[in-house]
Amino acid sequence: MEIRACLFDVFGTVVDWRTSVSREFAAFAQAKGVKGIDPVEFAVEWRKLYQPSMDEVRTGRRPFTILDVLHRESLMKLIGRYGIAGLGDADIDHLNRAWHRLDPWPDVVEGLTRLKKKFIIAPCSNGNIALMVDMAKRAGLPWDCILGAETARAYKPMPDAYLNSCKQLGLAPGNVLMVAAHNHDLKAAKAQGLRTAFVARPKEHGPGQTTDLQADASCVDIPAADFKDLAAKLGC
Amino acid sequence: MEIRACLFDVFGTVVDWRTSVSREFAAFAQAKGVKGIDPVEFAVEWRKLYQPSMDEVRTGRRPFTILDVLHRESLMKLIGRYGIAGLGDADIDHLNRAWHRLDPWPDVVEGLTRLKKKFIIAPCSNGNIALMVDMAKRAGLPWDCILGAETARAYKPMPDAYLNSCKQLGLAPGNVLMVAAHNHDLKAAKAQGLRTAFVARPKEHGPGQTTDLQADASCVDIPAADFKDLAAKLGC
Repeated sequence: MEIRACLFDVFGTVVDWRTSVSREFAAFAQAKGVKGIDPVEFAVEWRKLYQPSMDEVRTGRRPFTILDVLHRESLMKLIGRYGIAGLGDADIDHLNRAWHRLDPWPDVVEGLTRLKKKFIIAPCSNGNIALMVDMAKRAGLPWDCILGAETARAYKPMPDAYLNSCKQLGLAPGNVLMVAAHNHDLKAAKAQGLRTAFVARPKEHGPGQTTDLQADASCVDIPAADFKDLAAKLGC
Repeated sequence: MEIRACLFDVFGTVVDWRTSVSREFAAFAQAKGVKGIDPVEFAVEWRKLYQPSMDEVRTGRRPFTILDVLHRESLMKLIGRYGIAGLGDADIDHLNRAWHRLDPWPDVVEGLTRLKKKFIIAPCSNGNIALMVDMAKRAGLPWDCILGAETARAYKPMPDAYLNSCKQLGLAPGNVLMVAAHNHDLKAAKAQGLRTAFVARPKEHGPGQTTDLQADASCVDIPAADFKDLAAKLGC
């Protein structure tokens, strides 16, 4: 079957959340006089609350809730844990939107621009629409539309996150390529009939990364070094 | 309040559905040997079934159903009424997707491109995501994301069609400008707190058009001659 659309995981695959959130927290801490917290540690601790927060929705213990809200709840936990005092709601909202201000990996904009000429390109992220739109405007990501958890009303790796995204494009899963730097995401996509491409992001978790260093051949159709290499492999 | 996003009605406002669907039907009829049907009449009759088909959803008599499905049901009625025989499912699907292949008015691409530099731009149409994406790819409409009936799960002019679109952008209605060539659309948007711009499309319904020739001052904040004029009026 012909590939008609490419869907992309975003956090880690398109953008370097660890470096960007660290930078945002460092600037915030400086502006607000918050001292003694390592910005990278703060970013990593925030991210650690990501999967547990979505699990509440995945299991049905709470109704679908967008990631901006989950991120903010996680942030409130960290603010309490680190004993950061004196922040107003607007301060917390600004810091929460650090996730709207993430930088892409260096190959992304060129790769997406080339892929867009031949395919529909869209994020299929657990991030909500506003987060994805703000990020794209700032970073110059040329998406054709924003798909993912909020439009599908399901968090990856739940089957509906992939299947509803294909359905919303009017395409069969076999016409859609899921692109991610995480083998577990691709395994879940492949189980729903999508095609898969792995792009290595060996520094997502910093210099000592031990996971997702290479494609898992059991679930990856196309391994690629980066988005430019993926574009070349798809004839763009 | 500052305008942060512009939402656009599409059929009639962004694209010339009457001319484009007529052209598509004429080509289809020629290819399939269908004779004796005026293409403009066919387009207009198809469009006449548009509002009644959505009313089934608006009133709650049927669950939310995307426009591609409603369009196809309407098309089947017309095929029966005109006695067109011998079409396969793939033929009917192709003709149904005439609505994915509509041409923009001449000022649209330049106007949107200018507006995009300053604002988030998105359709807020009753068309579904696949329809909007296919149309945008073909016509070069540079949307930041696709909003509207399918993401909002409500057909305009129901309040949720506007309110959910603002919410999905993370914006208050007062930060969002609804742009349309139809005063009734703008009246409904204004009632939900959105700001409004009217763009005249005096040939949407052909040479004898009598409706929506000018802005209704009771619901229009910004009257504009076309998208380029709108861009100029918004400082783009």
